[in-house]
Amino acid sequence: MIEPAHIDALRKIVTDENIYYDKAHMIAYSYDATRTRYEPDAVVFPRHEEDVSAILRYCNEHRISIVPRGAGSGFTGGALPVNGGIVLAMEKHMNKIIEIDEKNMVAVVQPGVINMDLQKAVEAKGLFYPPDPASQEYSTIGGNVSENAGGMRAAKYGITKDYVMAIRAVRANGDIIRAGKKTIKDVAGYNIAGILIASEGTLAVITEVTLKLISKPRLKKTAMGIFPSVESAMEAVYNTMASGVTPVAMEFLDNLSIRAVEEKFHKGLPVDAGAILITDVDGNLPEEIDYQMNVIEKVFIENGCTEFKKARNDKEAADLWFARRNASQSITIYGSKKINEDITVPRSALPELLRRIDDVSLKYKVKIPCFGHTGDGNVHTNVMVDGSDPEQVEKGYKAIEEIFRITVDLGGTLSGEHGIGLSKAPFMKLAFTEEEMNLFRDIKRAFDPNDILNPGKMAL
Amino acid sequence: MIEPAHIDALRKIVTDENIYYDKAHMIAYSYDATRTRYEPDAVVFPRHEEDVSAILRYCNEHRISIVPRGAGSGFTGGALPVNGGIVLAMEKHMNKIIEIDEKNMVAVVQPGVINMDLQKAVEAKGLFYPPDPASQEYSTIGGNVSENAGGMRAAKYGITKDYVMAIRAVRANGDIIRAGKKTIKDVAGYNIAGILIASEGTLAVITEVTLKLISKPRLKKTAMGIFPSVESAMEAVYNTMASGVTPVAMEFLDNLSIRAVEEKFHKGLPVDAGAILITDVDGNLPEEIDYQMNVIEKVFIENGCTEFKKARNDKEAADLWFARRNASQSITIYGSKKINEDITVPRSALPELLRRIDDVSLKYKVKIPCFGHTGDGNVHTNVMVDGSDPEQVEKGYKAIEEIFRITVDLGGTLSGEHGIGLSKAPFMKLAFTEEEMNLFRDIKRAFDPNDILNPGKMAL
Repeated sequence: MIEPAHIDALRKIVTDENIYYDKAHMIAYSYDATRTRYEPDAVVFPRHEEDVSAILRYCNEHRISIVPRGAGSGFTGGALPVNGGIVLAMEKHMNKIIEIDEKNMVAVVQPGVINMDLQKAVEAKGLFYPPDPASQEYSTIGGNVSENAGGMRAAKYGITKDYVMAIRAVRANGDIIRAGKKTIKDVAGYNIAGILIASEGTLAVITEVTLKLISKPRLKKTAMGIFPSVESAMEAVYNTMASGVTPVAMEFLDNLSIRAVEEKFHKGLPVDAGAILITDVDGNLPEEIDYQMNVIEKVFIENGCTEFKKARNDKEAADLWFARRNASQSITIYGSKKINEDITVPRSALPELLRRIDDVSLKYKVKIPCFGHTGDGNVHTNVMVDGSDPEQVEKGYKAIEEIFRITVDLGGTLSGEHGIGLSKAPFMKLAFTEEEMNLFRDIKRAFDPNDILNPGKMAL
Repeated sequence: MIEPAHIDALRKIVTDENIYYDKAHMIAYSYDATRTRYEPDAVVFPRHEEDVSAILRYCNEHRISIVPRGAGSGFTGGALPVNGGIVLAMEKHMNKIIEIDEKNMVAVVQPGVINMDLQKAVEAKGLFYPPDPASQEYSTIGGNVSENAGGMRAAKYGITKDYVMAIRAVRANGDIIRAGKKTIKDVAGYNIAGILIASEGTLAVITEVTLKLISKPRLKKTAMGIFPSVESAMEAVYNTMASGVTPVAMEFLDNLSIRAVEEKFHKGLPVDAGAILITDVDGNLPEEIDYQMNVIEKVFIENGCTEFKKARNDKEAADLWFARRNASQSITIYGSKKINEDITVPRSALPELLRRIDDVSLKYKVKIPCFGHTGDGNVHTNVMVDGSDPEQVEKGYKAIEEIFRITVDLGGTLSGEHGIGLSKAPFMKLAFTEEEMNLFRDIKRAFDPNDILNPGKMAL
């Protein structure tokens, strides 16, 4: 528990209406999408960068933990105040789009801006911000940068880090740091922005982000391919990517996921298919779209696709996307508790990954529906168990651990887009050597020697 | 000077034929493209990562400075052993392309691989590695990554950092670190690869790099636009980039540069033009190429372009590129000494940057021909002076300092692609606050507490 004197000192910085420590607020800021709960001692709403600097300087002197928080929509506990202390909530004041600079094609935003609000604002000017995590309707840019969020469009357009040009941030000691520029090229000094991305709020508090924008492609088209087996679909994925055509999205559902959506929504999905792939292509010319679609169709057919459906209009495109968009909620038919991981492997390892996940499913007698962003090797793996049966839950976690081992064995990563936070911290030792963990710890210490910033995360 | 016992210890690690300390070798490894000289005490050719690890562990224990070196073609003194010690030369053994993985579209290379050798090897398989620094014929991937090299194609395809997926490196204490994966997405642990890029050999010794490849576009076309003034050309540059078309290259020559090439080569260049822009577009379809060229032509004409020449074949394209390719050597007609900087500003600031460089030229009575990669805001600024006249040389450096101030004032950076090294170290204080420099120093200390790795660089 932090002392009343600390509360008073912080109140002086941010004024009365921007600090709360009543029970209702403490509960409201105690959770994220993991549904695990840790109550903070106070929640503070900084009005601007100077507030953040003053708060951090004070907390650093008094060894008070600080957890920066966007929307609290993370999947790995990144925003949970496991040691109590202060939650630094960005949604109230630090939520402005400061500038959309059309000439240089960049946006300057505060961390609390919601991803979708930014997308809409830039699209109104003919520009495009590609990173589109599934949480885009509510997650914030600060959170997206801190976790290096991905999304459906990553296959063609990359992930959050590919759009971060500059970051302003405050170190644990209160120092304000500007990192990067509104320029494509900048090699002066260490790449501080590079290391702040995906650092999960453990190194500094982000106060402003400059994001690269691109022109919005004028045309888009959707198609779906039906495959007899997961393997044939996975072969089609990496052969498409190697064909010279880069689809915007290349999303996949396995048989269990298809059946779940069909059972719930009765859309006439191919319940006997081994897998379906849904793909979007975009461009500025009809010829470009047709060329890309024809290449994809050819590669799909060569790899065993039994039916290739092209959407003729937006309604048909939405119909093709329906299964993917509703997969996550539908698979709950297989169990009340979903242990959901976002493992990622090199694309060529996808067939083997899915084969070995099947073995794990048989071994532990748990259903593991898989779907996701196969265009970039990112598979959402869902171990479904009966949450009221402790034995099944334990089996589920054993299955997950085995899947992590397989992933690392195939040259993959524990997390493609959700981060490590609390949930994956126990598995860091599977992916990193002691020497690598030591380097992480040395970097943490360099930025935040008193460990006040988001302590207890990433197995640091 | 390091002691004979140290030489013996290092000899035991790498064997007799991989360590030299005779005068001829010390001279050969004493310089880079800055023509400044510092002799090392020994040059060591590691055979593999284990050698690098053993050498670093030894040197760290005995506080011996280590300077990693690729081709020694850097422009800012990054490879100069200013404290003596050991030059760690990668060109003899650690120069292999380990793998070109066509399925995942990545290449795995050792640091001593020459950029152009990699480009040729991947293009033979229909793949493409876009970063093309002017030094591509001899500079190495290790050097390119350490300086975050750019090139002509950056306007469309980005720079070295956009292609680095993973790095293996050795820390000062000898620890081997694997950072990143063969996957587009990877958010587990801190982004170590991100901070090693552009760290100029001061944080770790890179032993292997995994690079993203893309499909090689099948078609390319070149055009040149002639403009009455630098301002009109610069307006055309940023309006093209904002039009939705992204040219591969958008290169510029000012009037002084045009005149210099014409005086030297008599190619019939427009010597009264204020500036010329040379641009390439690429794609897989003729319709795409035509569309892009038409948009560029329209934007150029709207911004005052008096003549737009499209190359009809490869020979005409090479002719259009001639002026740009020969600008650097031609401008020596204006002075025996070239003080050459690679400042970069947000594209919209290019007209003002060039205007203000003109003022500096008048104030110091020095000629400052400019050319370069305007598509990404990167201008090669060349202050030309008589190298035998100390007074002129001093004026030249004053002019450069003023240009750096203008650049920073316009939101730009000291270096777009050459790095800081020794040459730009005195100007770091123009670009960074003391708090920012402190963070750089804390990071340096976290990686290399005894300051053995490339000491004396980047004003650390």
